[in-house]
Amino acid sequence: MPASFTSHIEHLPSTVPFVGPETAERNRGAPFLARIGANESVFGPSPKAVRAMQAAAADAWKYGDPENHELRNALAGRLGVRSENIMVGEGIDGLLGVAVRLYVEPGVKVVTSEGAYPTFNFHVAGFGGELVKVPFREDREDAMGLVSAAREQGAKIVYLSNPDNPMGTWWEGAQIEAMIAAMPKDATLFLDEAYMEFAPEGTAPPCDVSNPGVIRFRTFSKAHGMAGARIGYAIGEEATIAAFNKVRNHFGVSRIAQAGALAAIDDTEWLASVQGRVAEGRERIYQIARQNGLAAISSATNFVAVDCGRDAAFAKAVLDGLVARGIFVRMPFAAPGNRCIRVGVGLPQDLDVFAEILPQVLEDVQAASQA
Amino acid sequence: MPASFTSHIEHLPSTVPFVGPETAERNRGAPFLARIGANESVFGPSPKAVRAMQAAAADAWKYGDPENHELRNALAGRLGVRSENIMVGEGIDGLLGVAVRLYVEPGVKVVTSEGAYPTFNFHVAGFGGELVKVPFREDREDAMGLVSAAREQGAKIVYLSNPDNPMGTWWEGAQIEAMIAAMPKDATLFLDEAYMEFAPEGTAPPCDVSNPGVIRFRTFSKAHGMAGARIGYAIGEEATIAAFNKVRNHFGVSRIAQAGALAAIDDTEWLASVQGRVAEGRERIYQIARQNGLAAISSATNFVAVDCGRDAAFAKAVLDGLVARGIFVRMPFAAPGNRCIRVGVGLPQDLDVFAEILPQVLEDVQAASQA
Repeated sequence: MPASFTSHIEHLPSTVPFVGPETAERNRGAPFLARIGANESVFGPSPKAVRAMQAAAADAWKYGDPENHELRNALAGRLGVRSENIMVGEGIDGLLGVAVRLYVEPGVKVVTSEGAYPTFNFHVAGFGGELVKVPFREDREDAMGLVSAAREQGAKIVYLSNPDNPMGTWWEGAQIEAMIAAMPKDATLFLDEAYMEFAPEGTAPPCDVSNPGVIRFRTFSKAHGMAGARIGYAIGEEATIAAFNKVRNHFGVSRIAQAGALAAIDDTEWLASVQGRVAEGRERIYQIARQNGLAAISSATNFVAVDCGRDAAFAKAVLDGLVARGIFVRMPFAAPGNRCIRVGVGLPQDLDVFAEILPQVLEDVQAASQA
Repeated sequence: MPASFTSHIEHLPSTVPFVGPETAERNRGAPFLARIGANESVFGPSPKAVRAMQAAAADAWKYGDPENHELRNALAGRLGVRSENIMVGEGIDGLLGVAVRLYVEPGVKVVTSEGAYPTFNFHVAGFGGELVKVPFREDREDAMGLVSAAREQGAKIVYLSNPDNPMGTWWEGAQIEAMIAAMPKDATLFLDEAYMEFAPEGTAPPCDVSNPGVIRFRTFSKAHGMAGARIGYAIGEEATIAAFNKVRNHFGVSRIAQAGALAAIDDTEWLASVQGRVAEGRERIYQIARQNGLAAISSATNFVAVDCGRDAAFAKAVLDGLVARGIFVRMPFAAPGNRCIRVGVGLPQDLDVFAEILPQVLEDVQAASQA
């Protein structure tokens, strides 16, 4: 009696590589000692955002404003653009899903990096697009290489995250502007700036919303500490932004999240405090790596790629050893980044535990590999 | 420089008929006196759910469990099914978007009722499907008429909401079972039960998850008072439910919403209290209608369709008059339902205001129409 799935859907896998730490905790039968693998901000949301969300909880019987009016105005004010240049959505994941859908169908090529954000790939595949993957170059997404590939392949979209997940590296704003200037005329750049708040001054190019060929993505999930609230925004040229309305879930953004985000934007003191603690945490991870004879890759995010010094199998063994001992971390999934593990900036006590356990793991793994 | 939208996207409108009350409030420059137009549950979430969401707010830095494990187990336990038969998503709107996407592409026909839930139509159009619309019959969605149309048209999906939005009417469970039995072998029924908790015993057919041709949709948005939290669930046959994983946003459900929903399910006392107050509220609206010489349609939901007694233009004038005086209500958008306005069960004070203002509006509208 059932309807058949579309043939495109039929060919998509139903098992997907998105495993949350809760699943691992259920499998191991115990919570993790340190939850530093999903690039979450352990310092939490601004206390003002928490209070705003708590106040909004009693009003959760009301749908959120489908226009996200207040939040768009607040963001537009801070960015020096108009609210028509802002689209609020259910995190960058939600916004990427809509954005991909605007441009991608079977036959469309999309350029990304080999080992870059897998949720983006999931969306492209979900709409029948063909992914063209360009290797990282010196542990950075190869900005000009992506542009060349787009030109050669006649791709419609180029995806770049700056700063980069999973390597933590970054391009300066001027280099991004050069990339934008070099983009093919009939392609659009999806510039994922999820981690921008952790990056040095000058990493973000100036906001140019006159250009319909760039859509920038920002989020409250990382520096603002609201990953579980599901709220982010896209910045772009007016007609491009308006197009999201053709397909987005208009009442999709949580009213509670809206309240939290509004308060979070205003709490610049809290953001600065998080940025400072993340910078310190990165330094700590560099130090822990050094102490263990490993190289850490300089990061502009809230995580650090630690080069385990050998191949992917070795890094995987280190990862498994850490997870088995209660440290939730992840690792890049493609070469050459997969010689690293990816360690999030935890609380000082999280990094203490990491510092204590890493050498034990390395010893065990090295012993096993020499056996 | 931009990429072109897909031709399908190009042809979709970017202005959509989803206007939240906040927009009207901004336009009128003042809040509404009574917010009874969006079928929200004015009684709010369970206080236990509110506390759970407030506790979860501080943990909003963590992503929610992508498997929605605890909530699925709790729901499965109560429904007498397995957790593999449950898919949690971002409200029925979010789940319908995914479900439609599994089956609909250009060339696919989908049967619904003329005047039924417009968000469903939005999703079908968004994936290129062709809507076949069957008129309401005696103010109910014409269950067997929908089945016949599906058979005649070779449609893949039939959509039916029971109880019905916008008319508030309902079919008994046995009648739904007969409809299911009559469905074409290659079509799937999307059974939207958003308002089921307000309906009389026996309105829901027994749960038969052996049938891959029925997907049932339930929500926390209505009786559970969590519209702004964005959380709902689908119940179905295991492989059908698993298919949602091919395209859903895996980390899309808010951690705060998960906490609230878990607490809400357990607070059966609160739910019973809401059901009782909604039943009383419906009676009050029937009475107010009677007092004004209008017929109200018996409802199994948390709103009542009040027949204004004349045509759509008249009902629209009544609606506009109410809105202008601060009562947010809506109306069915297609004939013959659009002879009615749709009034939500508000708090007693909301219905007091409605009772006070309705006769004034009717007087003005009748005067204007005789002028």
